[in-house]
Amino acid sequence: MLWGGAFEAPTDEQVRRLNDSIGYDRRMYAEDIAGSIAYARAISTAGVITLQEAEQIVAGLERVLNEFERGEFQLQPADEDIHTAVERRLTEIVGAVGGKLHTGRSRNDQVATDWRLWTMHAIDQIVGQVLLLQRAILSQSEAHFETLMPGYTHLQPAQPVTAAHWLLSYFWMLVRDVERLDDARRRTAECPLGSGALAGTPFAIDRVALAQALGFVAPTRNSLDGVSDRDFVAEALFVLSLIGIHLSRLAEDIVIFSNPAFGFIRLDDRYSTGSSLMPQKRNADPMELARGKAGRLIGNLTGLLTVLKGLPTSYNKDLQEDKESLLDSVDTLMGLLPVVTAVVHTLKLNPERMQQALDESMLATDLADYLVKRGMPFREAHGVSGRVVRRAGELGVGLSRVPLEDLQALSPLFDADVATIFDFAASAARRKALGGTAPEAVQRQWADARQWIQSRGG
Amino acid sequence: MLWGGAFEAPTDEQVRRLNDSIGYDRRMYAEDIAGSIAYARAISTAGVITLQEAEQIVAGLERVLNEFERGEFQLQPADEDIHTAVERRLTEIVGAVGGKLHTGRSRNDQVATDWRLWTMHAIDQIVGQVLLLQRAILSQSEAHFETLMPGYTHLQPAQPVTAAHWLLSYFWMLVRDVERLDDARRRTAECPLGSGALAGTPFAIDRVALAQALGFVAPTRNSLDGVSDRDFVAEALFVLSLIGIHLSRLAEDIVIFSNPAFGFIRLDDRYSTGSSLMPQKRNADPMELARGKAGRLIGNLTGLLTVLKGLPTSYNKDLQEDKESLLDSVDTLMGLLPVVTAVVHTLKLNPERMQQALDESMLATDLADYLVKRGMPFREAHGVSGRVVRRAGELGVGLSRVPLEDLQALSPLFDADVATIFDFAASAARRKALGGTAPEAVQRQWADARQWIQSRGG
Amino acid sequence: MLWGGAFEAPTDEQVRRLNDSIGYDRRMYAEDIAGSIAYARAISTAGVITLQEAEQIVAGLERVLNEFERGEFQLQPADEDIHTAVERRLTEIVGAVGGKLHTGRSRNDQVATDWRLWTMHAIDQIVGQVLLLQRAILSQSEAHFETLMPGYTHLQPAQPVTAAHWLLSYFWMLVRDVERLDDARRRTAECPLGSGALAGTPFAIDRVALAQALGFVAPTRNSLDGVSDRDFVAEALFVLSLIGIHLSRLAEDIVIFSNPAFGFIRLDDRYSTGSSLMPQKRNADPMELARGKAGRLIGNLTGLLTVLKGLPTSYNKDLQEDKESLLDSVDTLMGLLPVVTAVVHTLKLNPERMQQALDESMLATDLADYLVKRGMPFREAHGVSGRVVRRAGELGVGLSRVPLEDLQALSPLFDADVATIFDFAASAARRKALGGTAPEAVQRQWADARQWIQSRGG
Amino acid sequence: MLWGGAFEAPTDEQVRRLNDSIGYDRRMYAEDIAGSIAYARAISTAGVITLQEAEQIVAGLERVLNEFERGEFQLQPADEDIHTAVERRLTEIVGAVGGKLHTGRSRNDQVATDWRLWTMHAIDQIVGQVLLLQRAILSQSEAHFETLMPGYTHLQPAQPVTAAHWLLSYFWMLVRDVERLDDARRRTAECPLGSGALAGTPFAIDRVALAQALGFVAPTRNSLDGVSDRDFVAEALFVLSLIGIHLSRLAEDIVIFSNPAFGFIRLDDRYSTGSSLMPQKRNADPMELARGKAGRLIGNLTGLLTVLKGLPTSYNKDLQEDKESLLDSVDTLMGLLPVVTAVVHTLKLNPERMQQALDESMLATDLADYLVKRGMPFREAHGVSGRVVRRAGELGVGLSRVPLEDLQALSPLFDADVATIFDFAASAARRKALGGTAPEAVQRQWADARQWIQSRGG
Repeated sequence: MLWGGAFEAPTDEQVRRLNDSIGYDRRMYAEDIAGSIAYARAISTAGVITLQEAEQIVAGLERVLNEFERGEFQLQPADEDIHTAVERRLTEIVGAVGGKLHTGRSRNDQVATDWRLWTMHAIDQIVGQVLLLQRAILSQSEAHFETLMPGYTHLQPAQPVTAAHWLLSYFWMLVRDVERLDDARRRTAECPLGSGALAGTPFAIDRVALAQALGFVAPTRNSLDGVSDRDFVAEALFVLSLIGIHLSRLAEDIVIFSNPAFGFIRLDDRYSTGSSLMPQKRNADPMELARGKAGRLIGNLTGLLTVLKGLPTSYNKDLQEDKESLLDSVDTLMGLLPVVTAVVHTLKLNPERMQQALDESMLATDLADYLVKRGMPFREAHGVSGRVVRRAGELGVGLSRVPLEDLQALSPLFDADVATIFDFAASAARRKALGGTAPEAVQRQWADARQWIQSRGG
Repeated sequence: MLWGGAFEAPTDEQVRRLNDSIGYDRRMYAEDIAGSIAYARAISTAGVITLQEAEQIVAGLERVLNEFERGEFQLQPADEDIHTAVERRLTEIVGAVGGKLHTGRSRNDQVATDWRLWTMHAIDQIVGQVLLLQRAILSQSEAHFETLMPGYTHLQPAQPVTAAHWLLSYFWMLVRDVERLDDARRRTAECPLGSGALAGTPFAIDRVALAQALGFVAPTRNSLDGVSDRDFVAEALFVLSLIGIHLSRLAEDIVIFSNPAFGFIRLDDRYSTGSSLMPQKRNADPMELARGKAGRLIGNLTGLLTVLKGLPTSYNKDLQEDKESLLDSVDTLMGLLPVVTAVVHTLKLNPERMQQALDESMLATDLADYLVKRGMPFREAHGVSGRVVRRAGELGVGLSRVPLEDLQALSPLFDADVATIFDFAASAARRKALGGTAPEAVQRQWADARQWIQSRGG
Repeated sequence: MLWGGAFEAPTDEQVRRLNDSIGYDRRMYAEDIAGSIAYARAISTAGVITLQEAEQIVAGLERVLNEFERGEFQLQPADEDIHTAVERRLTEIVGAVGGKLHTGRSRNDQVATDWRLWTMHAIDQIVGQVLLLQRAILSQSEAHFETLMPGYTHLQPAQPVTAAHWLLSYFWMLVRDVERLDDARRRTAECPLGSGALAGTPFAIDRVALAQALGFVAPTRNSLDGVSDRDFVAEALFVLSLIGIHLSRLAEDIVIFSNPAFGFIRLDDRYSTGSSLMPQKRNADPMELARGKAGRLIGNLTGLLTVLKGLPTSYNKDLQEDKESLLDSVDTLMGLLPVVTAVVHTLKLNPERMQQALDESMLATDLADYLVKRGMPFREAHGVSGRVVRRAGELGVGLSRVPLEDLQALSPLFDADVATIFDFAASAARRKALGGTAPEAVQRQWADARQWIQSRGG
Repeated sequence: MLWGGAFEAPTDEQVRRLNDSIGYDRRMYAEDIAGSIAYARAISTAGVITLQEAEQIVAGLERVLNEFERGEFQLQPADEDIHTAVERRLTEIVGAVGGKLHTGRSRNDQVATDWRLWTMHAIDQIVGQVLLLQRAILSQSEAHFETLMPGYTHLQPAQPVTAAHWLLSYFWMLVRDVERLDDARRRTAECPLGSGALAGTPFAIDRVALAQALGFVAPTRNSLDGVSDRDFVAEALFVLSLIGIHLSRLAEDIVIFSNPAFGFIRLDDRYSTGSSLMPQKRNADPMELARGKAGRLIGNLTGLLTVLKGLPTSYNKDLQEDKESLLDSVDTLMGLLPVVTAVVHTLKLNPERMQQALDESMLATDLADYLVKRGMPFREAHGVSGRVVRRAGELGVGLSRVPLEDLQALSPLFDADVATIFDFAASAARRKALGGTAPEAVQRQWADARQWIQSRGG
């Protein structure tokens, strides 16, 4: 225990269990030790301890790190958190000089520093996984620039699109996520060490140098804020929630498109699961979990925001609730992203089923555009085309089979060349402006996407 | 693995890790085994298996239970969930007959049944802990029927109240929570077993008898709903969130009232904690955690509601996300409630500091009521009393020191007997209608509270 | 303004706008006036005002009510909330005696009373609308006891079910919702009037009689809790969220099933919408809104829970945030439920498309059960049936076309009578245990449902 | 109605009310008209309409804008949304040529464009208000570089800090918020116009030029994503929630510090409110609302994230739920920020009460540091200092009154010069490293803050 001189009775055991964070904050051992090494050097430079003492402490800390990395570190019952555990072990190794390390430091600035470092590393790992998923999308879409499928709005047939276009729509969502992670990381990279418990440090520590030594961009600028700011956790949780939402949308598409009524997609056996009762089942379990886990990620975000709301000035113990939610969101995505990546890599599109699902009514807009090109205002052309759709329904035929005289009864602008409209590939190919579904536009889009990912070293 | 005949390739290892729930659903081992024992008997009665087979299976399941309870159960790598693990071990023990247990049953109805049983037990445990906290409130308040303290609204001094009245306000919040848990439990107690995967069972199982054998009130009435209903989890999460909110309010009071500027409360050393840097610190850590954990509980609720939103018919894998949130909320409260109970039991109220914090301006309402009794409409009396408060401020004195002539200048209804108004105890004692703060009303309230808790066997 | 005597400067205009609630709480005018009428009588009985004064006040309040109901009430700029507005107008009508009404009452207990009454009425209205939706489900399902459709789990074909069974699964979700609304209403029906600002009333008011006069079940039991309890709002918001979730699931089914790849459902023209660009579009807009609005309802709940977390004792202004969220959730469902009801009433099921979507692999469980009846343990039978599915896939045929010798190669228990298994209607008919999908079980289920709704007077 | 040719029956009136968004999206009228003007020019450049037609349309749109700005625009019952209303009115003004405007455009890309423009403008306004609040903090803190107050952690006395330091802690939270708004705005500034309904436009529109004409940075890169991306709304809602959380923390401090037990702060009469019952009341209502509204903002965020979760590809009507939440969050903060700014500007700090609340135990860390400077390891010094605190408690005196011999009994390192430690101002002045509470460090901090705000033109 790092305190107690002023107390007459030991802490109750149930309170200990409630307070203890070692069960999860031990995952920050490397960051805690790195922080302590840098801090030992900083207080040595500031003349608080001698260079020799600093060297003893650093050597001791390196040994503690080594024990952690080899799985040899032995937790003791009194190790309430990772900071206590490391300092306890350090003092066992180096003796009383270990007790000098915490001079001018509080767990308040220490934990904030460790936790920011851990979050920066976690962001790096998530970015790495997102880039792999984006590569899988690029790879899967490369074969489908020309593959036609129904485009849906409201999940109702809308217009023909190319399958690569559909897949790439997810690429750009993830681009935004990576950019948000960049921004979140930049704001995380401010170093609170040297803020003490709340009021700053009375020792002449060079906080700029200390921040840089730990890989931060700059020190925090107000010690009260420095020890209690958890915006960076909230922001990370938000961006991870958005990633989860994007995966949930992809998941919904894959679940629906792999239903046999669609049959657009077949998941690889390795990524499908069966039923304990129904022998024929092939479920897209991983995608359903992807969809569901968006809820969990949103719950973690909501939980932390609620914790932060209304807290009084500076550090409050409530802030300890910031860890498990982020650990869980990071673990959730680090477990999910590789699976989604593998699913995307291995899924089989079925162009025949996609083609069969195209219906001539999806060309009704093209039909209206045909009239527009003959001078009819679009609003009127939309109405005429709608009546053609209705006529086709009455006749029980596709749009292309509505007799020309019926068309001409609806508008004299129709001519025999209207037949050229009823071509799904031509419809898609016309949408070649930037961002459109035409194969040539999608190829440009794909090239832009590849360039983006290459610029990330992905 | 409980399926696979129709598959060509084994499941990917990462998918396995994502899908596997054994890490947490093993906590339902007792419920799973109880469910299987009852099911073995039900299909025996239905003639699906012989009585002898049922006896073999039941004996085997009891052995598996025994292994779990003695900590001897050995998980195998292929045990993806508790259901697989139990059936695997059963078959090792009893041989091929174990393979007959799952006849007509699906993991869909099995898991829903186990999970409802677990939730019912968890509710019982939470109720037990809440009752203990309520007892602590009764016990602590019994000594303070007459103790006066400032009552606050907007955290500004309002009127004198008795300390027992303040404490008991939390009693009734928890009464509502217990009643909500009762309602939630009643709705949880419907048995889905016999719903099969989604369509019901083709075997002549007596579902009413099966439900009763397991302690349920009734069987579920539609198999599609039976396998996918998770309302009971949402409802439990909601009630646990409200309990957390009530604890967070009590926590906020205790945190504020134990600040030395108030000094109303001193936490026992065993429930206070110190600082790694500041030797004098006594923090109400457990209460801050109580306040913070409300956020976590709300996050768990939000997460599950989001998971449930928009799911298609019947069972979807997303529903697996229902477990960890409830496990976490139950664990959170089972860890927190005993600590809050101990804090309430051991906290020391400081009646002197409470008395000192009473200010005569808190009697301004009584002053207005004095005028009302002399016939002035309350609205006017309120204004006069407000002007007395202002006059006292100008004079820099308490209300009782405003000269009678000043009072009479504000209203001729003031008389020398106005002095009797400036008595905090008398002010409280006047509020003796049901639910009021007068000692006599609070004693009645306390007696009602004790009666309520006794009716619960608490 | 109802206060001000002690203040030197008037409230800032921007603060006024922030504080004012008249924009939305005027919807409680009827409840506010009813509360004041009952209160006037209660303080008359208690001897605070004379019977004649009470009669004057009641007559004045009835005139104010009348003005509201005829749309003739004129708001004044200083009417910050409905309570101020009513009292201001009352005093205009009856003169100074109106200023006696607020004796011993605070806006704290007044608003809590009004708001509980409003919530009770709102719950009644929601229940009424839910019952109408349930009637629509009963009506639509009555024609489809025998209609077969694919039952899905994981949105993959599972087993044949009857369409009425699918529809009725939503009936029971709504039964639970109605029961939750009952419970929530019961807990709402406690009357805080007589709690004063926080400490109770110094006047001899009979709170039990007052509660009953207003339609409450009982008075609240602790004045501090009475003025600050908003559990009833949270509980209402929770139940409304669950209703929203149930509607969102029905919506998801209808959106998917009305995609032409399924074609199971056609929405009536009156409940479909089109596109400004694509003339052929028929979108299930109302159902998409139903799905989306679940998010809004959940957001309202989360918002209020976050408001409540960590509030100090008794009334705080934060509680004013309890109104708009519940008003919005009630309005949302009162707008949505009639539309969903109409959609369900008018949707056309397409039994032919449902039948076409049945695939013999959905009988694989029946095939396994066939082997079970010949003595094979289910676990083994599941594997054999899975291999039959695989064999059928290799041959490119349905299960019924796998040659008997191929079946017998997989298990000698197969016999020529296996052919009887391949009958979808027979498969469904076998699941006749309580809650199963067999027409006879669904008819019993339907009768139970009708009985339930009749017991509600629905 | 912008569609209907293919429909046989008109839309049901209740569906109309549910679908209609004109009640709130009319607030985007300026953005809608700006978007249409730019679009008219773009399709003219692309040769879809003539230059003359474009000029007619532009002139018509400017007249519609004029009508809106003068409050003369007349809504018609069929104006279901702002887009329909504007096009309807345009066509009334310019005749059939108005029907050409929508060529190649869908409400899907139109609404996404309008909504992004509106969000960009809203962000600009919020930034402006935040900068004003930051200025108020600078202004209020300028007078309090030397004012000492207790610094708290866990709301327990920790170390003396300067009041300016406390105030400035909120400045830096808002700096991060402004930077987040910058990032959110940058990501909002991508133009979806030209995405059509989902598949892109078949007309040769120069989307880069169109984006620039509207003040966007670039066009969106995938039309499916372009019409359905609402990340920008979620991100705005998130940042607004964090602003709300920061205001809620400031509010909590002000509420607590203006309780008379503290008496650190007195709110100006214009920003305090009273009670309808208690004449003496001065409540910090606006700050309580600030605290409460954080919950509302978080609810809006949660609601939208839940709406987005699991949506299938491209546009779905659920997305219409994106508007009211952001409108409400923006309105909430635009109402709240000016009030909080005025409160900060006008609040009166009470340095005497702050000074009185300083307690010598808050110097226990300095006492430990004294021993550290004499060579004792900090960990040991912490224990000794804790025992001094306990001894002072036993003696019932402040730390400075513990006799030197008692100190020396605890450590021989204590000397007569220990008396110099017991000086609150000196304690603060020692914490002069960057970000510390020393007046000289706070002055530097203030200067940095002023420089930051000047760089924003604030």
